[in-house]
Amino acid sequence: MAGSITPRRIPEATVARLPVYLRALFEVRDQQQATISSERLAELAGVNAAKVRKDLSYLGSYGTRGVGYDVEYLVFQISRELGLTQDWPVLIVGVGNLGHALANYRGFLVRGFRVVALVDADPAKVGERIGELAVQHLDDLPAIAAERHPAIGIIATPAAAAQEVADRLVAAGITSILNFAPAVVAVPEGVTLRKVDLSIELQILSFYQQRQAESASA
Amino acid sequence: MAGSITPRRIPEATVARLPVYLRALFEVRDQQQATISSERLAELAGVNAAKVRKDLSYLGSYGTRGVGYDVEYLVFQISRELGLTQDWPVLIVGVGNLGHALANYRGFLVRGFRVVALVDADPAKVGERIGELAVQHLDDLPAIAAERHPAIGIIATPAAAAQEVADRLVAAGITSILNFAPAVVAVPEGVTLRKVDLSIELQILSFYQQRQAESASA
Repeated sequence: MAGSITPRRIPEATVARLPVYLRALFEVRDQQQATISSERLAELAGVNAAKVRKDLSYLGSYGTRGVGYDVEYLVFQISRELGLTQDWPVLIVGVGNLGHALANYRGFLVRGFRVVALVDADPAKVGERIGELAVQHLDDLPAIAAERHPAIGIIATPAAAAQEVADRLVAAGITSILNFAPAVVAVPEGVTLRKVDLSIELQILSFYQQRQAESASA
Repeated sequence: MAGSITPRRIPEATVARLPVYLRALFEVRDQQQATISSERLAELAGVNAAKVRKDLSYLGSYGTRGVGYDVEYLVFQISRELGLTQDWPVLIVGVGNLGHALANYRGFLVRGFRVVALVDADPAKVGERIGELAVQHLDDLPAIAAERHPAIGIIATPAAAAQEVADRLVAAGITSILNFAPAVVAVPEGVTLRKVDLSIELQILSFYQQRQAESASA
């Protein structure tokens, strides 16, 4: 394994942690640190050090005893593994407040996600400019997809519209969908769907806040 | 352990998965299903069944052989464990597009998070009504905190303002902070800080999309 840089099989849970490591590594790099220990990376990512070492071993990254991992190289390895060294054209459906926020979100661009089209079902929104893009109508989705080849479609509509939008994205040939709408969406086999629930971290906070309150009153 | 409903020590990783289970259980409940197997819950949550059983055992929940878990009771157990059976007043700082989206996000309310105040540093935004709330000035934070006792402060400002806002939240006595700004924020001991990176799920999608492309061209 030692010479192999990109082993083929990475567990799903490891894949899900790679972006968290990457974010931590960006922070460390901003602070001009050239190396990082697995313990420090674990602390920043909120997992334990053994898990960090195991996860990174899937990428063929083992660190150096007493020195740790080379930050720059690890950024490169994780970015490549996640596919972030290539450019991902993204299409956003729904330009309400959330769609607007996502269209302007700087965190996308630094990781290679480029918003190439904004779409809405409301004719009143068509033509509105957000950054360098003008909002287009949902009905134009097939033409937009054929022309700009979005790799990922983001659903930022109200819950009630989410399933129909997903169906239309799939019909337009988009096989990766990220759903921000608080609704369950079904997609056919061969389409990858992920969901973002903006309340998840709030729930984790409330767990710890409750614990704090309990121990204060104990 | 069998009779104990709330064991004291739950691993951090388990806490982070509880909201994901809860979301899956809400979906199942919407479909009028009274029980769920650990295998099905695992599938919905994207983990393996052994992990589900282990996680739920920390809550004193073991399911019934051949039947699975009672959905309604499991919703109650997880909600209670996460502190969602109580009401959490939330304050949002920054009412740009993201702040607006969060103020209107239905996913918060169904889990007991009630937005009690909206604050912005821009005087032009003060007085703007969003739902039932009027935006107030950031300088009024101490008075707002004293009056409405927000348990959690959400930072939805641009990155450059995030640290100052965090400092002000802490000074106003708020000990749980959720940071949506793409910036590193430091808080003193005793304050719980969590971050939301809206690009994390996109990165996971790009991993699978890249794999798909590789196997298609292989």
